[in-house]
Amino acid sequence: MSHPSPGTEALTRPALRVVDGAGRTALERMLRPRGVALVGVSGRPGNPMARPLRYLREHGFAGGIHPVNPGHRELEGLPCHPSLAEVPGPVDLVLALVPAAAAAGVVREAGAVGAAGVVVFASGFAETGPAGARLQEELAAAGREAGVRVLGPNCQGLLHAPTGMVATFTAAADRQLLPAGGVAYVGQSGAVGGSILDLSAEMGLGLTAWASTGNQADLGLVEVASALLDDPDVRVLLLYVESVGDGGSYLRLARQARDAGKHLVVLRSGRSSAGRRAAVSHTGSMLGDDTAFVLASARYGVVLVDDVDELLAVAAMLSAMPRPEGRRVAVVTTSGGAGSLAADRCSDADLDLPELRTGTQDRLRPLIPAFGALANPVDVTAQLFTRGADAFGDVCRIVADDPGVDTVAVVLTMVVGPAGAALAEDLVATSARLAKPLMVAWLAGQDQTAEGRAVFRAAGIPVFSAVGDLARAAGLVAPPRPPAAPGVTLPRVPAPDPGRIRGLIGTPDGPGLLDAMGIARPASVVVRTPQEAVDAVAGLGSTAALKLNSGALAHKSDVGGVRLDVDATGAAEAFDELLAAARAHHVDRVDGVLVQAMVPAGTELVVAATGGRDGFPPVVTVGFGGITTELYADVASGLAPVSPEEAWAMLRRLRAWPLLAGFRGAPARDVRAVVDAVVRVGHAAAAAGPRLAEFEVNPLVVGLPGEGATAVDVLVRVTGGGDPVGE
Amino acid sequence: MSHPSPGTEALTRPALRVVDGAGRTALERMLRPRGVALVGVSGRPGNPMARPLRYLREHGFAGGIHPVNPGHRELEGLPCHPSLAEVPGPVDLVLALVPAAAAAGVVREAGAVGAAGVVVFASGFAETGPAGARLQEELAAAGREAGVRVLGPNCQGLLHAPTGMVATFTAAADRQLLPAGGVAYVGQSGAVGGSILDLSAEMGLGLTAWASTGNQADLGLVEVASALLDDPDVRVLLLYVESVGDGGSYLRLARQARDAGKHLVVLRSGRSSAGRRAAVSHTGSMLGDDTAFVLASARYGVVLVDDVDELLAVAAMLSAMPRPEGRRVAVVTTSGGAGSLAADRCSDADLDLPELRTGTQDRLRPLIPAFGALANPVDVTAQLFTRGADAFGDVCRIVADDPGVDTVAVVLTMVVGPAGAALAEDLVATSARLAKPLMVAWLAGQDQTAEGRAVFRAAGIPVFSAVGDLARAAGLVAPPRPPAAPGVTLPRVPAPDPGRIRGLIGTPDGPGLLDAMGIARPASVVVRTPQEAVDAVAGLGSTAALKLNSGALAHKSDVGGVRLDVDATGAAEAFDELLAAARAHHVDRVDGVLVQAMVPAGTELVVAATGGRDGFPPVVTVGFGGITTELYADVASGLAPVSPEEAWAMLRRLRAWPLLAGFRGAPARDVRAVVDAVVRVGHAAAAAGPRLAEFEVNPLVVGLPGEGATAVDVLVRVTGGGDPVGE
Repeated sequence: MSHPSPGTEALTRPALRVVDGAGRTALERMLRPRGVALVGVSGRPGNPMARPLRYLREHGFAGGIHPVNPGHRELEGLPCHPSLAEVPGPVDLVLALVPAAAAAGVVREAGAVGAAGVVVFASGFAETGPAGARLQEELAAAGREAGVRVLGPNCQGLLHAPTGMVATFTAAADRQLLPAGGVAYVGQSGAVGGSILDLSAEMGLGLTAWASTGNQADLGLVEVASALLDDPDVRVLLLYVESVGDGGSYLRLARQARDAGKHLVVLRSGRSSAGRRAAVSHTGSMLGDDTAFVLASARYGVVLVDDVDELLAVAAMLSAMPRPEGRRVAVVTTSGGAGSLAADRCSDADLDLPELRTGTQDRLRPLIPAFGALANPVDVTAQLFTRGADAFGDVCRIVADDPGVDTVAVVLTMVVGPAGAALAEDLVATSARLAKPLMVAWLAGQDQTAEGRAVFRAAGIPVFSAVGDLARAAGLVAPPRPPAAPGVTLPRVPAPDPGRIRGLIGTPDGPGLLDAMGIARPASVVVRTPQEAVDAVAGLGSTAALKLNSGALAHKSDVGGVRLDVDATGAAEAFDELLAAARAHHVDRVDGVLVQAMVPAGTELVVAATGGRDGFPPVVTVGFGGITTELYADVASGLAPVSPEEAWAMLRRLRAWPLLAGFRGAPARDVRAVVDAVVRVGHAAAAAGPRLAEFEVNPLVVGLPGEGATAVDVLVRVTGGGDPVGE
Repeated sequence: MSHPSPGTEALTRPALRVVDGAGRTALERMLRPRGVALVGVSGRPGNPMARPLRYLREHGFAGGIHPVNPGHRELEGLPCHPSLAEVPGPVDLVLALVPAAAAAGVVREAGAVGAAGVVVFASGFAETGPAGARLQEELAAAGREAGVRVLGPNCQGLLHAPTGMVATFTAAADRQLLPAGGVAYVGQSGAVGGSILDLSAEMGLGLTAWASTGNQADLGLVEVASALLDDPDVRVLLLYVESVGDGGSYLRLARQARDAGKHLVVLRSGRSSAGRRAAVSHTGSMLGDDTAFVLASARYGVVLVDDVDELLAVAAMLSAMPRPEGRRVAVVTTSGGAGSLAADRCSDADLDLPELRTGTQDRLRPLIPAFGALANPVDVTAQLFTRGADAFGDVCRIVADDPGVDTVAVVLTMVVGPAGAALAEDLVATSARLAKPLMVAWLAGQDQTAEGRAVFRAAGIPVFSAVGDLARAAGLVAPPRPPAAPGVTLPRVPAPDPGRIRGLIGTPDGPGLLDAMGIARPASVVVRTPQEAVDAVAGLGSTAALKLNSGALAHKSDVGGVRLDVDATGAAEAFDELLAAARAHHVDRVDGVLVQAMVPAGTELVVAATGGRDGFPPVVTVGFGGITTELYADVASGLAPVSPEEAWAMLRRLRAWPLLAGFRGAPARDVRAVVDAVVRVGHAAAAAGPRLAEFEVNPLVVGLPGEGATAVDVLVRVTGGGDPVGE
C-alpha cells in the first residue's frame, strides 16, 4: 500500500554524527554555524537566490558571511570569493544557490573545506521524474562520500532566530524576527513552511528555529526534528508532515519529546484520497498507516492538528500559557448570545462547560448586573466596564479559582478603541497571574481593536476571531478524557513464547496458534476421512461444527466450508460435502476437516491484528461481530503489545460497549476474559514477526462473567516483505 | 419541554398592518422613515444614548432628524424640541433613548403623533425578572393600544444603509457604511449583531439593513425578517436565532425566501445544554425542537451555520458570486502541501475533489511546470508567475470550464507584495467572468498582502485565512447531495380520513388505528376470558402472540405483558398470566388481551412520529429495531406529512440501509412496503391533531420484495396541550 518517498530511507538510519572540534553534531553546526558560505549567490536584488545573503545581513547574523560567485568581487558590502576553497575562516554551513545539475559539485567542495552541511534549494530532482531522481541519488551519494549532510533539495532552507542565521529564500523572512518564544518548526513543504513562518510572526509568535526539508535526499523530517528537540531553547516543536517515513523513528521522536517534557504538535496532510494524490505528486509521499500514526501520536501525547491556523494557535497557547489539566471550560463574555455560541462550539469540541460552583457564583454576584449570568457562560454584560478598568480581570480570576474549571475562555464582542486596549492590558496581566490558560476570542474588526490586539500580541496571547476557532484550539490542547475505571480487576497476562508463535504463523494449525497465544478454544480435532469425522464427533460428547481446515481461507462459509450442529450420524455426509465444496471452489491448501465442539451462544466479538507497516508496531483492533463493525465502523484499536489497561480502554471506546456491560435486560458479559484475549492477541502480533500480515480471531464468543471467552476460529494472512516490527 | 420566551407570542399573530397614506406597512415606515424623532437623546458626546443622533447625521440620513429633550434648545446643530408633540413634520420612527420606566410613555406619545414604530433601547425588562417582565408587558400593551409597533426593549436598534438611517448605538456604526451588497441581518442578540455589523464591514460586505430585536415585546425576529425579505434590495438575509418562537412562522419565512429566490442563512445558538443555559438567561429563549428546525430549514434550502465567521463567509459568497450547483471542488494552489491540506479539509466538509478530465489536464499542461500537478489539486507552483500576470487566471478559467467542477478553490501561500496585488486583480477579473464560484484562501500575513486583500475586499470576495475555513464555507453553500434514485417504483399513498385517525388517538384500539392508517397488521382479536383466548388462537390457524391490551403501556414486555408463539392448548394459561402481570405492575386501562397471529420473521424497523411541538409539524422518524437505533442513533427523520420520495430518502440516509438493500448474503427486503408505511405514519401524524404526543409502530416487520411490511404493534401517547399542527 505504501511506497517510501525518495529520501525517506534516510530517516531510518542513524544520523551521521559528524562532530566538529567542539563536539557538536552536524545539525548543531548547521543551525549555529561559525560561518556560512553562499555559493552561487545572485547579485540581482530581485532574484530569490539573492535573498539569503540579504537576510543574513538584515537579521544580524554575527558569524562569517561568505558570498561565493566568480562574477563578483563584492556583494552587499562583503568580499565575494571566486570559489568555496578560497573562503577564509571556518565554514560550517554552505548554501548551494545553484541549479540542480551543479548541486552535487557544491556538496563535494563543501566536504573539502570541512563544512558540516549543505542546503540545496534548487528544484529539478526526484519531484520531476526518473532523471531528476538519478540526480538526487547522485547528490545524496556526494554527501555520503564527502561526509557532509544535505538539507533538500527542493527546499526553502533553515533559520535560527537567536543568532539571526536566516538561510532561506522565503519572503516570510522579510519580516523582522521576533524574540524567540521557544517554538521551532520543521516540515517538508517549503511553501507551507513559509506561510507558517509569516503567520506566526504576524500573531506575535517568534519561532526559535525553522527548517524545510524538501525532497529529503539525506536529512529527513524526523532527524531534523529530533535535533531541534535536543535544543534547550526549544519547548514546543511543530511538524508539518506528508510522510513520516519510518514509523519507528516517529515513535522514538514522540517519546523523546515526552521524556524531555516538550510539546510536539503535528499537522499532517494527505489523509483523504485527493489529499494523498496531491501529496504524492508533491513529494512522492504519503502517510502509510494513519491508524498506527494516530495511535503512536496519542501514546506520547502528540497534539495532532488539521490546519495551519490550528497549528499556530496551539503553538501560541503552549508557548504563552500553562496547558490545561482537563476538558472543563468556563466562558466569560460580554454577550449572552456570543456566550451561547461559545458553549455550543465547546460542546462540539468535546469540552465540558460545568456550572460554576455555588461559592464561585456567590463571589461573582456583586460584580455582575442582575441581567447578566453567573452559571457558565458568565455574561458580565457591557455594564461591567463601569466598575473600573480591572473588573473583567477580577471576574476571570474568580472563575479560574473554581476548582471545576481547567480553562477560562474570554469571548469579547464590540469592546473597541481605548476601552478595548485597557481590557487587553487587564487580561494580559490577569493571564500572567493564573495557573490556568486564559484564551481570548474577539468578535470585532481588526482596525477598531488594533491597539488592544497589539497588547495581546506583545504578550504572545493568541486572539481568536471566531468562537469555533477558540473551541477547536481549546479541545486540541486539553488532555484526552481518561477512560472510566475498570469495573473488574484486570488480568495480568504473560507474553507468549515468540518462537512458538512465529513457528505457527502461516501454518493451517489455527488451534495450535490459539493454544500458543493462550486463548481458549473449543475442543477440536482434524480428521481426514469420513469415518474419522464420525468418531471425532462421537468423542466430543456434543454436536460439532465441521469446517474445511485451511489457513488460507478467509470466509469459509462463503464457499460452503462450514457445517454447524452436526451429530455423529451426519458427520460422514458433512465431511464429504465440505471436501466437494472445496473442490468446487478451487480452495488451496486444504488439510482435511476440523471437527470442533459447538460453543454455547454468547456475545460475539472480533479481535484482529495487522502486522506492523512502515515501521510502526502492529495494530490490534476489537469490535463486535455482525453489523456493528461493518456498517458503523465501530472498532477500537491499540498499538501492539497492548496492556490490560489499554485493552480495557479500547473496549470502553466501542459505542456498542453496552452489549458487554449489559443492555436492555441482557446480562453483562465476561469483560475480564475479553481484556485477556485482546492482550494476548497484542502479544502474539508483537511476537509474530515480519511474516504476519493480519490475523483475526472471529468470533470470540463471550459468556457471562466467569464463563470466559472462546475463540471459535482464527484466520492468519502472511506476507513476504517487511522488517521486524516494534519500537 | 419548551417554554416560549416573553414576546415570542407576538411572532404568531398577524402583523399589525399599520399603513400610512402611501400604503406602506409599519415596518416599511420604520426602515425608511420620513422623519426620526430621538426622545431623550443625550447631549453628552461620550454617552451611548448620544450616538444615534450622531450616526444619523454622519451617515447622511436625508429625512427629518428631530432631537427631543427639554434640557436642550439645540443638539448637533439641529433644533431640539421639548416634547414629541412639538416636533414639526411627519415622524415615522421614534427612538426611545430613555430609561425602562419611561419607555411606555414614549410609545403612547408616539401613537399620538402618528408614528409607525418605536425602538426601545433600554434594558431592565423581562431579562431581569418578574418586575421587569411586568414592565415589558406594559410596554407591549401601550404599543397595542397606541397602534404603534415596538422594536425591543433591550435591543440595539436598526439601520437601513441606502438611506443612511442608522438608528442604533452599537459602536460598529462608527464605520463608514459600504455600498449595500443586498445582504440584510436581523437577530435577537444586540452584541452579536454589533459584531456582525462590524466584521461584515471589515471584510467588505455592506449590509443593506440590520436590526436587533432584543426582548421582542412586540416585533419578533421572524416578522422583521419577513419584512426584510419583502424588500427588493435584499437578496440574502442573515438571521441570528436563539429561539424561533413559532415553528409555523419560521416555516413560512423559509418558504417566503425560497419562493422569492432569496437566500436565508441562519446562525443558531443554544443547541448544547450549556448553550441553552446561556440563551435562557440571556433572552429567556431556546430552540424547542432542533430536529424539526433543521428539517424545516432543509426543506426550503436555508443554510444553517454554526459560527459568526461562517455566517459572514456564506453571506459574502452568496452576495458576490454564483451559488455552486454541486459539491465538486477543484483546488488550484501555489503549494502542493497546501493543496493536500485543502483536499483533506474539503473531504471533511463532504465535498468531492474529482480528478480533472483528460481534456482539462491537456489544456493545463502547457501552463504548468513538470513538477507541478494537474489532476486536482492543481499545483501551479511559484514558477507560473514567470509566465505573465494573468497566467493564474488562465488556469482558473480552464479548470472552471471542466464540467465536473462546481467550485474553484484558490489556495495561495507566500505570494505577497505587488505580486500578490497583481494576482488579486487577475483573480477578481477572472471571477467576474466565471459562472461558477471562485473562492480564495491566502496563507500569508495581512500586512504583507494588504494591497491584494484590498483588491478582493473591493470586489466583495471573501479571503479565507485557513483552508479549513474555506472548505467549511464551500460545504455550506453547496447544495446537499441528492438521494440516490429509488430502485423501485414508489407507491402513491392516499391520505387517511383525519376524523377516523383523531377518533382513535388515545383509545387502546391499536389494530383499529393501524387499519385507519392503512398499515398491514396480523389478524387479531381482543378477548376478555381465557376461553375466548383459546377459541381465538384456534381460529387463527397459526400460533399467536398474546399481549395485554392497553393504549397506555409503552413496553409491554417490561411488565411481562407479552406471550409469544402460544398455541390453543396454552392460551388459557397465558391469558391468566398476563392479567396477573398487569395487576402486579399496576397497569392502568387494561382492556382484555390481544390475540394476534404470529408474524413470520423479517427485518424489523421502528417508525415513529412525534406530535408537532412549538408550532412545527410532527416529525416522522424511522430506524431499525434492536441496537442500531439505540446505540448508534441511526435514525432518519422528515417533517410530516412526508412524500414517498422523502420517505425513500430517509431510508437511504440510514447507515444500516444495507440491511434493507441486501447485505452479506442476506436478501433485499420489501423497500416499497417500507416507504408506504412511512408515508402512512406521516399522514396519520399530520392528521392526528393536538392530542397526539407520540406514536410508534414497533416493530414493522419487513418481508422479501412483494411480501409487504406488517406492523406488529403500535403505541400511542397523548397529551392535553398544544394547538393544531401543520404549516
